[in-house]
Amino acid sequence: MLEQIEITSPFWQARQQTIAQQMIPYQWDIINDLKQVEIAVTNTGGDSTALDSDKSYVVENFLIAAGKKQGKRGGMVFQDSDAYKWLEAVAYTLEVQPNDDLRAKADRLIDIIAAAQADDGYLNTYFQVNEPERKYQSLYMSHELYCAGHLIEAAVAYTLATKTTKFLEVACKLADNIDAHFGPEEGKIHGGDGHEEIELALLRLYELTQAERYLKLAEYLLLIRGQDPDFFTAQQRRDVALGRKSLIPGLEIIHPDFKAPYFQSDKPVDEQTEAKGHAVRVVYLCAALALGAKLSGNQRLLTAANNYWRNIVQKCLYLTGAIGSTAHGEAFTGDYDLPNDSIYGETCASVGLIFFAHNMLRQNQQGACADVMEQALYNTVLSGMNLDGKGFFYVNPLEASPYRSKVNPGLRHVLTRRPGWFACACCPPNLARMVMSLGHYLYHEDNGTIFSDLFVASNATFKQKDGSTIELQQSTNYPWDGTVRYEVKQAGSAGVKFALRLPQWCEHYHLSCKGQERPAELKDGYLYLKEPAQTGDIIELTLELEPMLVEADARIGADYGKQAVVRGPIVYCAEEVDNGAQLQCLHLGSEGELRGHYDPELLGGVYVIESQGQRRKLAEAAAATSPATTIPAIASPLYRKAQPAQYEAQSIKLIPYYAWCNRAEGEMRVWLNPQP
Amino acid sequence: MLEQIEITSPFWQARQQTIAQQMIPYQWDIINDLKQVEIAVTNTGGDSTALDSDKSYVVENFLIAAGKKQGKRGGMVFQDSDAYKWLEAVAYTLEVQPNDDLRAKADRLIDIIAAAQADDGYLNTYFQVNEPERKYQSLYMSHELYCAGHLIEAAVAYTLATKTTKFLEVACKLADNIDAHFGPEEGKIHGGDGHEEIELALLRLYELTQAERYLKLAEYLLLIRGQDPDFFTAQQRRDVALGRKSLIPGLEIIHPDFKAPYFQSDKPVDEQTEAKGHAVRVVYLCAALALGAKLSGNQRLLTAANNYWRNIVQKCLYLTGAIGSTAHGEAFTGDYDLPNDSIYGETCASVGLIFFAHNMLRQNQQGACADVMEQALYNTVLSGMNLDGKGFFYVNPLEASPYRSKVNPGLRHVLTRRPGWFACACCPPNLARMVMSLGHYLYHEDNGTIFSDLFVASNATFKQKDGSTIELQQSTNYPWDGTVRYEVKQAGSAGVKFALRLPQWCEHYHLSCKGQERPAELKDGYLYLKEPAQTGDIIELTLELEPMLVEADARIGADYGKQAVVRGPIVYCAEEVDNGAQLQCLHLGSEGELRGHYDPELLGGVYVIESQGQRRKLAEAAAATSPATTIPAIASPLYRKAQPAQYEAQSIKLIPYYAWCNRAEGEMRVWLNPQP
Repeated sequence: MLEQIEITSPFWQARQQTIAQQMIPYQWDIINDLKQVEIAVTNTGGDSTALDSDKSYVVENFLIAAGKKQGKRGGMVFQDSDAYKWLEAVAYTLEVQPNDDLRAKADRLIDIIAAAQADDGYLNTYFQVNEPERKYQSLYMSHELYCAGHLIEAAVAYTLATKTTKFLEVACKLADNIDAHFGPEEGKIHGGDGHEEIELALLRLYELTQAERYLKLAEYLLLIRGQDPDFFTAQQRRDVALGRKSLIPGLEIIHPDFKAPYFQSDKPVDEQTEAKGHAVRVVYLCAALALGAKLSGNQRLLTAANNYWRNIVQKCLYLTGAIGSTAHGEAFTGDYDLPNDSIYGETCASVGLIFFAHNMLRQNQQGACADVMEQALYNTVLSGMNLDGKGFFYVNPLEASPYRSKVNPGLRHVLTRRPGWFACACCPPNLARMVMSLGHYLYHEDNGTIFSDLFVASNATFKQKDGSTIELQQSTNYPWDGTVRYEVKQAGSAGVKFALRLPQWCEHYHLSCKGQERPAELKDGYLYLKEPAQTGDIIELTLELEPMLVEADARIGADYGKQAVVRGPIVYCAEEVDNGAQLQCLHLGSEGELRGHYDPELLGGVYVIESQGQRRKLAEAAAATSPATTIPAIASPLYRKAQPAQYEAQSIKLIPYYAWCNRAEGEMRVWLNPQP
Repeated sequence: MLEQIEITSPFWQARQQTIAQQMIPYQWDIINDLKQVEIAVTNTGGDSTALDSDKSYVVENFLIAAGKKQGKRGGMVFQDSDAYKWLEAVAYTLEVQPNDDLRAKADRLIDIIAAAQADDGYLNTYFQVNEPERKYQSLYMSHELYCAGHLIEAAVAYTLATKTTKFLEVACKLADNIDAHFGPEEGKIHGGDGHEEIELALLRLYELTQAERYLKLAEYLLLIRGQDPDFFTAQQRRDVALGRKSLIPGLEIIHPDFKAPYFQSDKPVDEQTEAKGHAVRVVYLCAALALGAKLSGNQRLLTAANNYWRNIVQKCLYLTGAIGSTAHGEAFTGDYDLPNDSIYGETCASVGLIFFAHNMLRQNQQGACADVMEQALYNTVLSGMNLDGKGFFYVNPLEASPYRSKVNPGLRHVLTRRPGWFACACCPPNLARMVMSLGHYLYHEDNGTIFSDLFVASNATFKQKDGSTIELQQSTNYPWDGTVRYEVKQAGSAGVKFALRLPQWCEHYHLSCKGQERPAELKDGYLYLKEPAQTGDIIELTLELEPMLVEADARIGADYGKQAVVRGPIVYCAEEVDNGAQLQCLHLGSEGELRGHYDPELLGGVYVIESQGQRRKLAEAAAATSPATTIPAIASPLYRKAQPAQYEAQSIKLIPYYAWCNRAEGEMRVWLNPQP
């Protein structure tokens, strides 16, 4: 079992420091309403999100629920979760480095939360303060179990980080309240929450406490889903009949986008073969299915997890690890429908995809799962935040144009600069907890074997079942360099059974130990060392890391005939600031003409790639160099008899996708035209 | 002045017969609620249109307003206009061929309408029956002047067709009521209607009656627009304050898409340089600006018309003559933003564009205006109707996929089969009046010269100022054949000063008379005969009509690197039924490899084009023929290291765009990949 992990990678240390020093204090100020920040309300695309103030209300709501303050409970119905996600990020931050001030703030917040909890364990400031009679009755949109799940996840993380139990007690009391209200028994509610999250949280709580009832409750909530496809819609109709107001201001209770598939409740989970509806909901469900399958051995959960995995990864995934093709319901659409401009690609959805991939990996040891995890992490998740930690994206397009986003309402949700905060502030804290907990994703263990899943310079200590200790020092400048060295500082009693991931993008690699080739068996994307590693071994894995031209499956209409540049897990993009406007006119050079170098001054230090490409001349420019002829036009100067294209040479500068939109606002594209 | 016109073209006769015999009786049954038809409510895209019944209510509403029937007034707030548009189409139909039954029905309907008119001339069944106190107070959405405009246009057409005056009296009384309520004088309303239409109608009424007050009122309504940018929004706010309900059920009174630019009222018309907002509103405004400029000589109107023309034709026009890039507000977006899949491209907007182009042409004699008119007519307008006249499109995409329309809510408005009718039934009757009045668009006269604007086999009679008569017999199998013969049956006293349009798409032409080359001067897209034509002359214009590969301005991202096939005014498309699915994989052959033939059995008789092209193999198919190698993948099987593309030869069958979706439902594309 992983006992301790210290990330030493400058790439990731920089990001963790930004979050610890910049973003977490910034979020603290926001949830305590200590500062006013620019709040974007466009994050949900076509859906209008009405806010009655610039306040966040987060901590104040708990004070009001605890009877320690008078006032009006404010913010979204799921506002409580912002506090929990902040606490979870703090927990991981305290694991990374002690911080007395942060710890004191967190303890104070936990005290407030505990004070707000009802005697029976129920905890949700919206329903406690505003509509107590509506508790657990509007699950389609109440987010009660969703918020509870975030509380539980935060409490588990905080317990592990601080070895204190106060927060855990709140979590267990709340979980027990849910257990008392939901389940197969008569008189209990036979359904779950409109937004999955509680299921994964209960599984994590089970992992920590080993209390079987949490595993059983998670299994119940996963399998009851979709048994009655009318479960949520019946609640919607009842709320309408009772004249109750919508829990999301500005949205109708019965909204055309919010039908059963939106909630993954049109069919039982193991009968679902396609990812449908709200993308974050889907992957939170999936993460729980995969972990539940591992912890319970329940085959129905495994079937569901595998079906979802197959559909999402093989048919609904963007090159950047983004998911969710439409802003309408922030949702999946269908197979191969992956538009680059009107995409939703929510940061949270890719965080959830990492949870899913990680839990799949933990139960199947397939390197492909780690590949997806890494792809989402280095591209869409990192794109969710400005390099300075002061601005955030909800939506992560693969093609953006400030002009089109302004004039075309179908692209209103695609922002071309990162706002300081969101009315619905799920993404920034989700990103924070992901990055701060990164240490948990570098290795996993199965059946005595240690798997190296992500290449991140770090020192890791594992406790073996026999009580012995394994210490691995990983040195690498990944993702900029492909050499990864594992120094076995301590091998434990019987040596380290070790498997190293070989990403699918890697064409050539070399595995050695102290200058000697090290025999290994390649299976399912991992190189399994034939002999256990011993103390003093320095295993060196060299992955060839060359810029590569990539094409998409021809069934993806949006990418047809286009190419993207990747190097290892990093997807590249062209920005207007480097390449001028009208990026659709750029044509890449051949793969052999891609040249790269590390630029320590640019964008916090990035490996830049230049392609000796071409830019198609616009008709006027082309006409200026041609003999004057009248080219037939079709009613408009916009259309004319096809002419031989004229190009001018242009060196195309490509930067990592995650770093886009950190300089001048402008166009951006991932998929470019190939050499003409 | 054109005195009489008889269309003899089999192409257009077939369409006029379909409308006269199929569509007009069908619409009669609908407006009288004599039959239930399938009604599509998705026509307005993202906007939900709530209908409380499948009834149309159209005629019943007038009976209720006239006190001849009890009941609830139903349908949209602008439902009256369906009756007027039907009457206008009937008027043109009666011009084409006498029809006693139709004439009797129309006269009966006019009697009912006249009975519904208030003593003061006001006429609108919604406000008369439902909200009399709200008359002329909610102009942003009331469509009162819009409906009045359609009544007036219908009355003008009916008067010209039947030489009766009863309907005209109703129209004048209504126009006078408007004149009494709107105008610069104190106490009158200083603004117009949220939906332009009255302006054009008043100009037509002026043309017929020569009553100056109608010209003045039209000028006033055109120029007051946008003088107070808050005119409509202030009415919206007042209605909200008064607790009045929305006039369009399902839409909020203050809707994010419905701000001043939606109504072209953010600036005075002659300060507007870009087409913004609802596309039909824009072109109805423009049609009035152009005609108003001609009739009044007002330079401000001319400036506005020219500015709009420049922007629409040079930056916002689809190859098919469609306009309106977004379903949100059925609106223009911005320059070069012309997506082929999420387009709105409303049939009505292209009808309106023809009005605009025709009125521009009448005042500037620029062939380019006729080119636009023809492009919209032969492509988007005709696409608005099934060949059998029993189904209609509101939205006319250049790329459609039944699967994507089903799964992607951003494409919900793009239907892939034509429904029988629409809740908001503007397009079918608009198309009907356009096609039935086609005779009015074939020629125009200016300063003694007759301009041949559209090539349609026909017999036309013109009355000259000196009382003499000109008779022209036009013979052609256009659009399938490029030879057009004008036999001058009667030349009038001094011969015919004649100008023949030379479309911009035409590279090579020949002009002759009885085997001799006929000298002409080419100016602004017209061939002006150097000598007047005399009785007995047979002027023959031969336009080379070869299939042509077309490219779009490189600034249109959606079309970049693609080609379309046109032949004369006809834009071609590929359909799944002919070419299989995954149309994005098709690559056209070279222009030299385009072969065409007329197929009398197909789609009512069309010229079919075949391109000796290629289809890119999908990865699996390609892999099956390659030696087994592992191609690097990027996290997902969807993305892999770029490989040399593999193609298989495919003869691509192209049909006229207007005829798509008359066989099996499936994918369709206009813009295809060029030869690889």
